[in-house]
Amino acid sequence: MSVIRNILNSRSSSKGGNFFDSLHKLLGFRPKNISVYERAFTHRSLNVKDKEGNAINYERLEFLGDAMLGSVIASHLYMEVPDGDEGYLTKMRSKIVSRKHLNELGKDMNLIRFVKSNIPNDQFGVNIHGNIFEALVGAIYLDRGYKYCNKFIYYRVIEPYVDIETLEGRVISYKSLLIEWCQKKKKEFNYQVYEDTGNDELKHFAVKLWIDKKVIAKARATSKKKAEEKASKRAYYALQNKID
Amino acid sequence: MSVIRNILNSRSSSKGGNFFDSLHKLLGFRPKNISVYERAFTHRSLNVKDKEGNAINYERLEFLGDAMLGSVIASHLYMEVPDGDEGYLTKMRSKIVSRKHLNELGKDMNLIRFVKSNIPNDQFGVNIHGNIFEALVGAIYLDRGYKYCNKFIYYRVIEPYVDIETLEGRVISYKSLLIEWCQKKKKEFNYQVYEDTGNDELKHFAVKLWIDKKVIAKARATSKKKAEEKASKRAYYALQNKID
Repeated sequence: MSVIRNILNSRSSSKGGNFFDSLHKLLGFRPKNISVYERAFTHRSLNVKDKEGNAINYERLEFLGDAMLGSVIASHLYMEVPDGDEGYLTKMRSKIVSRKHLNELGKDMNLIRFVKSNIPNDQFGVNIHGNIFEALVGAIYLDRGYKYCNKFIYYRVIEPYVDIETLEGRVISYKSLLIEWCQKKKKEFNYQVYEDTGNDELKHFAVKLWIDKKVIAKARATSKKKAEEKASKRAYYALQNKID
Repeated sequence: MSVIRNILNSRSSSKGGNFFDSLHKLLGFRPKNISVYERAFTHRSLNVKDKEGNAINYERLEFLGDAMLGSVIASHLYMEVPDGDEGYLTKMRSKIVSRKHLNELGKDMNLIRFVKSNIPNDQFGVNIHGNIFEALVGAIYLDRGYKYCNKFIYYRVIEPYVDIETLEGRVISYKSLLIEWCQKKKKEFNYQVYEDTGNDELKHFAVKLWIDKKVIAKARATSKKKAEEKASKRAYYALQNKID
């Protein structure tokens, strides 16, 4: 069986070419049913239909992905915040899956590079990024089930983007907290930023945070601002006993 | 390992007594972590707290169960209605998980018999049935994961309650369709209803639908009206070529 699967996979890979490889990198696992991902990136303007005359585009997958995101995030919040009541959990989930947040995610992953459509890229609405992100989640569910969907959301949404304290508004910016502390304590600090392409498809920025000539924390992210914030957060927790 | 698990299970079973057995019947599978189900039936009026001071009642589980229901129903609709667009799917899901519908479900399962509270049963709001149903779904997810949650929702919600045609308003009542047809074709018909406790915890009604002295369909449900409707639907599909 696995031999047959490998042959089939290598075929679809050579057929789909770069799409398969890019997808593989993006997902962090081997996609099985390429056609559901193709659908996730097909814009309605192409006007594709299946044999039964049903439209093939990403809109139905958006519905599915939105539901999967909702349940994975709900489960995560339930576990992570044992003292949050129903109202709190509902509010936090809305923040995480807000249109703004999902657009940011889709943009960071540069999902738009995969979209096939009949209209120019700059004529998509602002929500295209979040919409395709949702459709991609729906496609993962159809291709590999809830478990993979859960993992993907964890590594691509929760781990890099969901910080309960920031969402609650308790901490607006770790960077400002850290700078304030350094100034108060008369410590020298420096955010050393450099571009780091690494093995990723996307451009990444890496930051070393120096305090008094020692590297206190390092971080990588898809923007300079995010990498600085991530490094500051790490430093904040590393120095927690010293900061008050 | 399974020996140890059996010993543990039989212990919790003898400890939880009837609750474990009733739950086992209701769920259709062996619950592992009884405490999450106990939580699903604990009303806030009991004012129970854990060691950390966090409230123990079903309200957080409601949030979790609502999210799981949403994604399972979304996935079902996606598969079942390939020609439904995003708007259609969203509307259908809202109907299925409407407060009214969930209250009906919780009531049919008589979930209120498990509730522990400090207030009399008749002082709960009307939504208690749906709320506990959601909490139960949340508890199943915590106890056995998405797969069991999916199965439970399929057998307890989708299979007995979700009929796309009725939801769409295309068919209001299969019983009236069938009676109309019998009258037009001058056929004798009779709904033979009898109480049938079977192996279930809940009282069930069974119906045989006779047309011209032949049993055309049988059905069981928690009310006479539902059993008649179910039998009519089955007869409707059995006779489909003859009914126009």
